[in-house]
Amino acid sequence: MEDLREAIVRKRDGGEHSTEEIRRVVAAVAGGRVPEAQVAAWLMAVFCRGLTPRERADYAGAMYRSGATFDWSHLDLPTADKHSTGGVGDKVSLVWAPLMAAAGFAVPMISGRGLGHTGGTLDKLEAIPGYRCDLAPGEFRAAVAEVGCSITGQTVDLVPADRVLYDLRNRTGTIETLDHIAPSILSKKLAEGARHLVLDVKVGSGAFMKTLAEAERLARVMVELGEAHGRSVRALLTDMGTVLGLAAGNANEVDESLDALAGGGPPDLRALTVELGVEVLASSGMERDREAARSRLCRLLDSGAAMERFERMVARQGGDLGAFRRRRAAPFTDVVAPRGGNVHRVDALKVGHAVAALGGGRGGAGEAPDPAVGVTLRVAPGQAVQEGEPFATLHHREGRGLEAARALLVEALALSPDPAPSPRPILGHVGAPA
Amino acid sequence: MEDLREAIVRKRDGGEHSTEEIRRVVAAVAGGRVPEAQVAAWLMAVFCRGLTPRERADYAGAMYRSGATFDWSHLDLPTADKHSTGGVGDKVSLVWAPLMAAAGFAVPMISGRGLGHTGGTLDKLEAIPGYRCDLAPGEFRAAVAEVGCSITGQTVDLVPADRVLYDLRNRTGTIETLDHIAPSILSKKLAEGARHLVLDVKVGSGAFMKTLAEAERLARVMVELGEAHGRSVRALLTDMGTVLGLAAGNANEVDESLDALAGGGPPDLRALTVELGVEVLASSGMERDREAARSRLCRLLDSGAAMERFERMVARQGGDLGAFRRRRAAPFTDVVAPRGGNVHRVDALKVGHAVAALGGGRGGAGEAPDPAVGVTLRVAPGQAVQEGEPFATLHHREGRGLEAARALLVEALALSPDPAPSPRPILGHVGAPA
Repeated sequence: MEDLREAIVRKRDGGEHSTEEIRRVVAAVAGGRVPEAQVAAWLMAVFCRGLTPRERADYAGAMYRSGATFDWSHLDLPTADKHSTGGVGDKVSLVWAPLMAAAGFAVPMISGRGLGHTGGTLDKLEAIPGYRCDLAPGEFRAAVAEVGCSITGQTVDLVPADRVLYDLRNRTGTIETLDHIAPSILSKKLAEGARHLVLDVKVGSGAFMKTLAEAERLARVMVELGEAHGRSVRALLTDMGTVLGLAAGNANEVDESLDALAGGGPPDLRALTVELGVEVLASSGMERDREAARSRLCRLLDSGAAMERFERMVARQGGDLGAFRRRRAAPFTDVVAPRGGNVHRVDALKVGHAVAALGGGRGGAGEAPDPAVGVTLRVAPGQAVQEGEPFATLHHREGRGLEAARALLVEALALSPDPAPSPRPILGHVGAPA
Repeated sequence: MEDLREAIVRKRDGGEHSTEEIRRVVAAVAGGRVPEAQVAAWLMAVFCRGLTPRERADYAGAMYRSGATFDWSHLDLPTADKHSTGGVGDKVSLVWAPLMAAAGFAVPMISGRGLGHTGGTLDKLEAIPGYRCDLAPGEFRAAVAEVGCSITGQTVDLVPADRVLYDLRNRTGTIETLDHIAPSILSKKLAEGARHLVLDVKVGSGAFMKTLAEAERLARVMVELGEAHGRSVRALLTDMGTVLGLAAGNANEVDESLDALAGGGPPDLRALTVELGVEVLASSGMERDREAARSRLCRLLDSGAAMERFERMVARQGGDLGAFRRRRAAPFTDVVAPRGGNVHRVDALKVGHAVAALGGGRGGAGEAPDPAVGVTLRVAPGQAVQEGEPFATLHHREGRGLEAARALLVEALALSPDPAPSPRPILGHVGAPA
């Protein structure tokens, strides 16, 4: 066992860790060579005293080097990835990864599961029968090389220090600080080896960051961290006050992703997916003119090129899209508007809780989400509803959680006699000039 | 297992615990019903964010009620105890406890062992062959009732929460804050059940508090904590820049204590012991006139009344003072002054380290101190030495650590051609007006 007391006391007293000291702490954690109580004390000292930008960069660097890393130079393609801080109805990755592959990038995407009221990309993909999110590193390498994109989960040998620390942060109340959050996120993206990163930092009721200022600070810290490690990083600050698209719930969201990949789907989903791609086309130099980049990506959606990549990716990872499309839908029931008005928003947090009530979330005890249940909105912000008109459909499992979900949906519907302002899904940019 | 995350997050974010919340945290700790990592995170959150006076009082209260407590009301005697924050050559408790018993108090003293470079009262008493520091609660009760005083160690059922927390603080770098130190000390004194407490808060190189301001703050917090629990508490701030008395090392210090109990010994030891007694005589109302209190205590030393209590206490706890007096002394060697001058001080920290070098300290791995080794000074501050004159004697075990100890002693000797200022062992009072 190693003794971290010197490092703990330094941080506790407001001091700064050397690069070597951070490396030693993280290596000891990854190797299981340090008592958990000391790690917990260090996590809290960092929470309370903070880290300098250099310490954060060293922390992210030490974490990503604690396990396997990927190198894609043999592919001779630019590499790209995106990260979302999580929201309700956020199925962007399912569309973005194949779209960027179609645009000529290699997209090695290691994704996560749902957390709290938010959905997770892996949970959504697993709604497709047979889809494997547990590719071994060699399988992941081969899938990216063959298809151009792969979405899989974090394996045990990827950033092991982060796995240990995240679990302990969760148990010791030391999650919610940029000084841990940003290095944790970036360490995984750095280990993946993509050169161009775009971050979707969500703001609002359904996001972890409730204010634009918080989100902007997280975005800046992550951009700075990625740049410190030689990656190009841009961030969009995007609205998560209202649900993204119309569907929330895993199978539901795959359906909506397929619509978007076919060139349709809700306009906000398509627009956000394309804008996140534009950032990478611009930052990589593949297409510096943003309007031209936008057109190129729209064409790749409309032509079926992105869909073709998605189908190949799913097939490569064992998924049966035909079986998914032929599945028997869960029973459903409508929710009607209690009065008429213009829809200003459909509160994302309440919809997230409704999905959880129906059994579509990850319960506290690691309960797996039921992919078949969820919410499909029938109106979007900007549209009007009449009193008694169905504005949402709930897919449920034998009525489980139905009344709670119905009540949450009614609460989520923000109506006004005034016309709704135009939706503004993108609230800001962080990173190199747009 | 209980989950402390709510309490951890509250403190982490600078919030205040309710009385009930602190009670729940401490009870869970004492009962072993909470994961160590959560306790470590809470300890660090308290370290970084601090506690209010009310929280500290609740913390001390919850700790002392976590185990057995003592009640002395059946003795129909006033009860008193002292606590020292620890120093080098501090053998005051060995003299003070029997002196106060002779003055008419019941003195239930639960004491500790050496820590770092400081000696511990129990280590000193165990230099007396047979002396038992592990009295069971019933034995302790009987010893205090019979003799009027008893000095023993903390048993497993006394303040169990503090035992668990202290061990974890030591391992997680969360020792050095008043918010943990003061409740930890007071909890033991509260559980002992003495009504009148006097604290000897030491300041200077050989003490844990290096500045008068730090020491005064600790004293104030402890006085406030004791008063919150209905005890009368006074504190003296005393000098630990120079060694107390002339002897450091366990058997050595028992010898010096016997001198003081016989009415002799170094004047600074006698004066400090008496002043700590005067505080209790005054605060308890037994003798409000401080000059009269001082005379009364001096008479009890000079008459042999204090010695008689000490001999009875040692015998009651299995010690053989005759065997101690007849022991074969360790080999010794003198240290000579490298030049002449007036002795301003003999640095306490360096002497503490010299004792440790000789084998008289507690090693890191729980090594027991060798009672026979130590340092006896042959000059005190205020006196003069000539070049080449022996100013200290080292008692060693087959030469172990001799050269290191000699070098430390030479460094410890602060000489000047100017006359030394009069020693000022008491630097301040905290508590009710002197």
